[in-house]
Amino acid sequence: MRVVTFGETMLRLSPPGYQRITQAERFEIAIAGTESNTAAVLAQLGIQTVWLSRLPDNPLGHLVAQRLRALGVDVQHVSWDSDSRLGLYFVEAGVTPRPTRVYYDRKGSAMSCWRPGEWDWHNLLRGASLLHATGITPALSEGCREATREALQVAREMNVSVSFDLNYRSLLWSPDEARRVIESLLPLVDLLIVSPADARTVLEIEGEDTDVAVQIQRRYRVPVVATPLRDQQSATMGRRFSVVATAEHVWRSEGCPFEVIDPIGSGDAYDAGLLYGYLQGDIDLAMRCADALAALKHTVPGDMLFITRTELEQLLRGNLRGILR
Amino acid sequence: MRVVTFGETMLRLSPPGYQRITQAERFEIAIAGTESNTAAVLAQLGIQTVWLSRLPDNPLGHLVAQRLRALGVDVQHVSWDSDSRLGLYFVEAGVTPRPTRVYYDRKGSAMSCWRPGEWDWHNLLRGASLLHATGITPALSEGCREATREALQVAREMNVSVSFDLNYRSLLWSPDEARRVIESLLPLVDLLIVSPADARTVLEIEGEDTDVAVQIQRRYRVPVVATPLRDQQSATMGRRFSVVATAEHVWRSEGCPFEVIDPIGSGDAYDAGLLYGYLQGDIDLAMRCADALAALKHTVPGDMLFITRTELEQLLRGNLRGILR
Amino acid sequence: MRVVTFGETMLRLSPPGYQRITQAERFEIAIAGTESNTAAVLAQLGIQTVWLSRLPDNPLGHLVAQRLRALGVDVQHVSWDSDSRLGLYFVEAGVTPRPTRVYYDRKGSAMSCWRPGEWDWHNLLRGASLLHATGITPALSEGCREATREALQVAREMNVSVSFDLNYRSLLWSPDEARRVIESLLPLVDLLIVSPADARTVLEIEGEDTDVAVQIQRRYRVPVVATPLRDQQSATMGRRFSVVATAEHVWRSEGCPFEVIDPIGSGDAYDAGLLYGYLQGDIDLAMRCADALAALKHTVPGDMLFITRTELEQLLRGNLRGILR
Amino acid sequence: MRVVTFGETMLRLSPPGYQRITQAERFEIAIAGTESNTAAVLAQLGIQTVWLSRLPDNPLGHLVAQRLRALGVDVQHVSWDSDSRLGLYFVEAGVTPRPTRVYYDRKGSAMSCWRPGEWDWHNLLRGASLLHATGITPALSEGCREATREALQVAREMNVSVSFDLNYRSLLWSPDEARRVIESLLPLVDLLIVSPADARTVLEIEGEDTDVAVQIQRRYRVPVVATPLRDQQSATMGRRFSVVATAEHVWRSEGCPFEVIDPIGSGDAYDAGLLYGYLQGDIDLAMRCADALAALKHTVPGDMLFITRTELEQLLRGNLRGILR
Amino acid sequence: MRVVTFGETMLRLSPPGYQRITQAERFEIAIAGTESNTAAVLAQLGIQTVWLSRLPDNPLGHLVAQRLRALGVDVQHVSWDSDSRLGLYFVEAGVTPRPTRVYYDRKGSAMSCWRPGEWDWHNLLRGASLLHATGITPALSEGCREATREALQVAREMNVSVSFDLNYRSLLWSPDEARRVIESLLPLVDLLIVSPADARTVLEIEGEDTDVAVQIQRRYRVPVVATPLRDQQSATMGRRFSVVATAEHVWRSEGCPFEVIDPIGSGDAYDAGLLYGYLQGDIDLAMRCADALAALKHTVPGDMLFITRTELEQLLRGNLRGILR
Amino acid sequence: MRVVTFGETMLRLSPPGYQRITQAERFEIAIAGTESNTAAVLAQLGIQTVWLSRLPDNPLGHLVAQRLRALGVDVQHVSWDSDSRLGLYFVEAGVTPRPTRVYYDRKGSAMSCWRPGEWDWHNLLRGASLLHATGITPALSEGCREATREALQVAREMNVSVSFDLNYRSLLWSPDEARRVIESLLPLVDLLIVSPADARTVLEIEGEDTDVAVQIQRRYRVPVVATPLRDQQSATMGRRFSVVATAEHVWRSEGCPFEVIDPIGSGDAYDAGLLYGYLQGDIDLAMRCADALAALKHTVPGDMLFITRTELEQLLRGNLRGILR
Repeated sequence: MRVVTFGETMLRLSPPGYQRITQAERFEIAIAGTESNTAAVLAQLGIQTVWLSRLPDNPLGHLVAQRLRALGVDVQHVSWDSDSRLGLYFVEAGVTPRPTRVYYDRKGSAMSCWRPGEWDWHNLLRGASLLHATGITPALSEGCREATREALQVAREMNVSVSFDLNYRSLLWSPDEARRVIESLLPLVDLLIVSPADARTVLEIEGEDTDVAVQIQRRYRVPVVATPLRDQQSATMGRRFSVVATAEHVWRSEGCPFEVIDPIGSGDAYDAGLLYGYLQGDIDLAMRCADALAALKHTVPGDMLFITRTELEQLLRGNLRGILR
Repeated sequence: MRVVTFGETMLRLSPPGYQRITQAERFEIAIAGTESNTAAVLAQLGIQTVWLSRLPDNPLGHLVAQRLRALGVDVQHVSWDSDSRLGLYFVEAGVTPRPTRVYYDRKGSAMSCWRPGEWDWHNLLRGASLLHATGITPALSEGCREATREALQVAREMNVSVSFDLNYRSLLWSPDEARRVIESLLPLVDLLIVSPADARTVLEIEGEDTDVAVQIQRRYRVPVVATPLRDQQSATMGRRFSVVATAEHVWRSEGCPFEVIDPIGSGDAYDAGLLYGYLQGDIDLAMRCADALAALKHTVPGDMLFITRTELEQLLRGNLRGILR
Repeated sequence: MRVVTFGETMLRLSPPGYQRITQAERFEIAIAGTESNTAAVLAQLGIQTVWLSRLPDNPLGHLVAQRLRALGVDVQHVSWDSDSRLGLYFVEAGVTPRPTRVYYDRKGSAMSCWRPGEWDWHNLLRGASLLHATGITPALSEGCREATREALQVAREMNVSVSFDLNYRSLLWSPDEARRVIESLLPLVDLLIVSPADARTVLEIEGEDTDVAVQIQRRYRVPVVATPLRDQQSATMGRRFSVVATAEHVWRSEGCPFEVIDPIGSGDAYDAGLLYGYLQGDIDLAMRCADALAALKHTVPGDMLFITRTELEQLLRGNLRGILR
Repeated sequence: MRVVTFGETMLRLSPPGYQRITQAERFEIAIAGTESNTAAVLAQLGIQTVWLSRLPDNPLGHLVAQRLRALGVDVQHVSWDSDSRLGLYFVEAGVTPRPTRVYYDRKGSAMSCWRPGEWDWHNLLRGASLLHATGITPALSEGCREATREALQVAREMNVSVSFDLNYRSLLWSPDEARRVIESLLPLVDLLIVSPADARTVLEIEGEDTDVAVQIQRRYRVPVVATPLRDQQSATMGRRFSVVATAEHVWRSEGCPFEVIDPIGSGDAYDAGLLYGYLQGDIDLAMRCADALAALKHTVPGDMLFITRTELEQLLRGNLRGILR
Repeated sequence: MRVVTFGETMLRLSPPGYQRITQAERFEIAIAGTESNTAAVLAQLGIQTVWLSRLPDNPLGHLVAQRLRALGVDVQHVSWDSDSRLGLYFVEAGVTPRPTRVYYDRKGSAMSCWRPGEWDWHNLLRGASLLHATGITPALSEGCREATREALQVAREMNVSVSFDLNYRSLLWSPDEARRVIESLLPLVDLLIVSPADARTVLEIEGEDTDVAVQIQRRYRVPVVATPLRDQQSATMGRRFSVVATAEHVWRSEGCPFEVIDPIGSGDAYDAGLLYGYLQGDIDLAMRCADALAALKHTVPGDMLFITRTELEQLLRGNLRGILR
Repeated sequence: MRVVTFGETMLRLSPPGYQRITQAERFEIAIAGTESNTAAVLAQLGIQTVWLSRLPDNPLGHLVAQRLRALGVDVQHVSWDSDSRLGLYFVEAGVTPRPTRVYYDRKGSAMSCWRPGEWDWHNLLRGASLLHATGITPALSEGCREATREALQVAREMNVSVSFDLNYRSLLWSPDEARRVIESLLPLVDLLIVSPADARTVLEIEGEDTDVAVQIQRRYRVPVVATPLRDQQSATMGRRFSVVATAEHVWRSEGCPFEVIDPIGSGDAYDAGLLYGYLQGDIDLAMRCADALAALKHTVPGDMLFITRTELEQLLRGNLRGILR
């Protein structure tokens, strides 16, 4: 089984602990990109995973490639750009009533210079089971928008399944613009992942969180629609669960409780879990893996989840408490 | 609008995380003084704020001045003392059932050598809207006691409002001594801030926490009496709220929930919020700012709150959850 | 009063915060051994405490001896071994739903090379009030098993009380093997400490957690049986309490709430509290000290509790909240 | 005495110790800009110093302003820009044979958007003794180039002295372009500072390092030309000295030995020393201060020198060895 | 071009800075193995490099594989062992007169359990240009000794060149034992690398350091013999150079100066440089790369050199001084 | 053999690396006192060593006692004081041309409250071979001065040898005062240690450094006078050597080279080496140990030398270079 994904990966810089940026004497480093976060989890679970991107040919770009390669992601098709920069973002972790704040500095990144035709999709998708894309890439630049469409079209032609996480970023485009572009892509999508909040903002879906998947499935006829949900008691505790809808059926998962060490990247781990089950044709497994991996991601510092398949299987078998010796 | 305050600022030394001091290999540094903590918040909110103190002319004294200046506090009237020392204190952060412990080492500090007449209050208070003092300063030394009285008297003469946070420190003086001195100062005070616990210990006020403000207002005829209150569920979660009493009215705020990263300094941030609203003549705003800033302070490491006016306004507009991008 | 104990102490290596080992750039160091953890607390409470072990004569062995000596544990009878190694273990701290994981690397440790006859127990136990042993030592090697029996027998001969914490380690031996060995030692034990989970696994005790002490006492006729219990609300909050049974009486403690900074070593601090009260002939005090010290241990990083007798006494007198100045 | 300067300040990010960027888990933070580095030293020496720049209105911009304000630099005339970014640079410290490497990421910075007319120079230079500029600013953008000329012209009109450090940055412009622009500015300059290497590259001066000042003075008729020089034995040890030329006289300083903790920013500290003496009309003092401060800067981590006037005076009085108690 | 190598890789643990182990509160982590260090440099220089080993299937084993994969080393043929452990070593960095001390804890490592026949060498060496081995592997265990011989024999059969770094480790075997084994392997070796000190201890070569290569070449008829040499002025400064001998010619390199950040692993980087040139059939290039990479390694913390081909080429073109922007 | 010593030990706080205090975000902690530094080395070399002092009964005092006890120093006779404080000092490490700066904050320390009669010297010195004192203690307070005299007199009465390190601290007393007091103590001293600089300042000895020991021996008739000497090439490299004079003989040692990681405490390690040899009646050994330990101390962070007897013996046997495996 082989998954192909593409997108921008940034350097994430964050003060240690709960310091404000203006207090900081040092930043902790992580690499961060929704698609590469998902790719890293899939690769750790044993799925052959290719990640495509454009990176600057400097130490920051090398750092991104090395850290993904470390986890088994295939980065050999990355384009190296000697002129442009790596996008960055800064995070200040917060607890109630101070929200976690993210400050982007991604303009002019190598990835945003992507143009249609730069990658040979027919070649890259040969033998692939799934192409995974998100709504961030078409928001990066006009070129990225067209290139995303190209990728999805070739996948459709080649009968490669397409998963798509809507992932709306309000700093990159308006809801209207996002809706127009994403609605034009949806006919090419086999599995859509969208949070109720994004569904409301971009697709103007109304009603209860647990109805969102069904409404979207009905409206857009996407074969499978998955919605990640959460009961959040405070900034540091909550529970992840899922609703998935197809034309024939609606599933609702039992869910998985979590405590929060790092709130960022859990949606990307969710996607990895969902794809992991989806590739095995098992929606129930997909939801359980998605909830578990999303919950686990909250417990690990950085954007990426460090995990083994054995650990996922242990968690799926039952609640793990106390100390595991 | 210009606020003048004065008091002692110490170097705070604390082991990282939740280490005990005897385990520690390093101490994290912060500067810490109730009045300078309040001044730093006011300055960040855009109020012109003068902080007066005496500091030793050595790197520790310079460090205090630099960190306050960084946040916009006016420190040009500080007296530099080439003989004495900077007061210190050591903190061990605890969680249930281990309390956070504070160990002072402040004897012989430069500030405690303050004498009446050292500062020209007529000059310093010209054009000021408010003089802010606390019950810690008169507890430091005989000289500080007389000098505090001098400051309040000049403020009264010049029609500058006086706010006073009772802030009882049992290591510095007895409840009786504190009561005698503070009661003699109260006729000079326009806005008194006092926690129910201190009201009980020092002023022998009895009854419910929420009645304390009214009782004090009735007894001492201070125009405005504010009481910071909290529902604390555990060492790491709670809710701040306020009761304020004047001769005509009693207000009770809705309050603001918080999680705790650092428990120290929230009372000082509370004072800043209260003064910020009080200076605008709006008791309701004062309570909301006080609750919000006190809650926010719990989320920031160190004694001082790092904040912008924009952030305060965002919080006042509504509950901020999740990740703010 | 003098307590003698013996066992293996390892170097504990753990990534900072909640990092996974594969993310780590550094490991924090602690020393860790159930008996030395208990000894360290007893020594800090003012009990003369001798700890026996075998250590490699290299910097890691010296580090163990120095850190125990620092807290007042008498390490002068340790055997120094120039050939073998110090056992190690690696910890990854987790929160819900990721368990804290412990990875041992203790094969071939100096302690596991212990042989009967190596120490002169008659000499070592002269004047001792108590010998404390745990179920980990007989699990380390055949030699340690025989040597443990030797120690307990000499104690019995010399009328020195024996306390024994069952402490089952599934990586070292099977439940059957453990049961056979431990049942053969129980006739030599005056005070048995065993968690309900271990009682179930090793001794095949059934029923409610709170009945375990009574059942064991009835079955094995050990004079005093203590069971540490906990209500754990999440990975980070809970409450410790105790049930103790003798032939005549059953006690159940009120318990002590806790929040978790480090989940490891609280059973060892519990033992120290129990022994501290038991040595004074006061079961009620023993339970209260055990609950309090176990709860306190959760608040301190590392395997060992750093504590003073004054602090224990303050906690026993009442709940400590907020900031202690 | 009042000095005005302007330029870009970046955030400097560097891995701890001598790590390569690709090894790093964290970056240490400093603020860094040639003009603000110089301003910070002057302010610490007691000179009233105004620094002008454009900064983004986000935590990174606030951090820059706070750290300069901390040291006494007047930042109240900074323009706040809500759209653009803060320039960044990354440093890998090296020792023989690995050079220290600097990677810039400064495109699109707030400062580079400066336009002529944005600041009211007549107002800003009123009462100033000196305007200090460098060759980096005109290299940032077309707008910065014109705006620099504007600043120097107003200074000339108002009889404010102008110092200019050529500071050639090959990543920003070509030698030809730099020469053309700088030669057009030189008639407005009273004190030119230029390293022999830059003099060769940009001005095509030839011959010995110690002749460079004289040649430039003869060719361009700048009243005072100063050249910072160094004997560098290795990456970690050397000696700073100076040659200064006027139409009438050439000075050569004795110099000051140094060891290197951080190689960056010593030229900026040199400028501060030179201006400090120049403002007192004493070229000999200027060279001694310049050599001393440049040497001292090598001993302090970060781009900026932390220093007091007392410390500079101690060093000028004689060599300080060993431990100063 | 494809290089195959095999050997043991350990986890290296070292206190920060120059702390003694007994002072340490944390250990810095690196992975360390002579063959994997060499492989990592070759992979970074663009050579396809396969590293074979046995690793425990636990987080420490995964960490080793991930960090090598990050740098591009092919680790897919590693054997995963669920029973045994990862070897460890502890380093205390020293300066004059305290030597850097290494303490091994490698007994029972997964690699030492290697047996002949475990890997299919015919398959692994198909298409390889070079097999690289060192004298550490045959010293690990009887099985490793036989398996090493097997590997070299298959290489010879398949006409794959063999390089061998003698690398004597006195803690693993005696000089006599080493001599017997290594002399039996030398007929299978095409390129021998041996330091003068090891040549003296193991092979009983006498005379000047610079004659060692020639003497060994004459005695054993190994086609190419390379000797890494150094002039070391102090613990922190020196110069690397090389003598290489064939039957027809002797080369002596100019050498490369260095300062020391981390003294370990420079021999492994030397090997990588030598192989890099040797694979291109250019002994002179080989020596220059070897000296340069060995010198560079001294400047980088950890056992492995982080480098790009561009950086090596820059250094070969000329001395790099000062700051490279 | 048993050595008794007494004096003040402080907490040392220093910014990491070469930061200035005003830059610092954290301080590294060490304990520091000339006599306890010496005691710690002696105890590590296997000499039974009693250290007497007064410490505050708070976590800082406990930390001092624990760290000395860790290294085997007998601290059971320390007096615990519940009122006073622990002395502190702050260090900024420097390199050329910035000196290492020490800022004391020791007024009012527990030790300075020592009074004659507080310790029962007859009891404490029973069976002791040597009493070691320094010139810092009599400089602390009037009480310490008298109490020091008392200690030396009892030692003389009991035929216990007395060693005395002059150790002049200009911040504590004037040269005249020091001279008067120390000259009155010298008749009670058997072994005097004094640096040439202190000999000049306090005793007004003139001439070459290598003549100082002889001159002092002649003038004061102290049986043995030792002078620690150094050739210091830079702030980071040098060589320690010694001259010792008796009435009959003058010795000059070969010396020991060193590089500097931490410049503080080497004199105290020197004393330990000297006493170690002196107690064995071997002046030559004493000098070699003194030079070696002083040199070694430069290589270890903090005030205290961490060392084993084996390591000292290795160094005495010959120069140790490179990596010791």
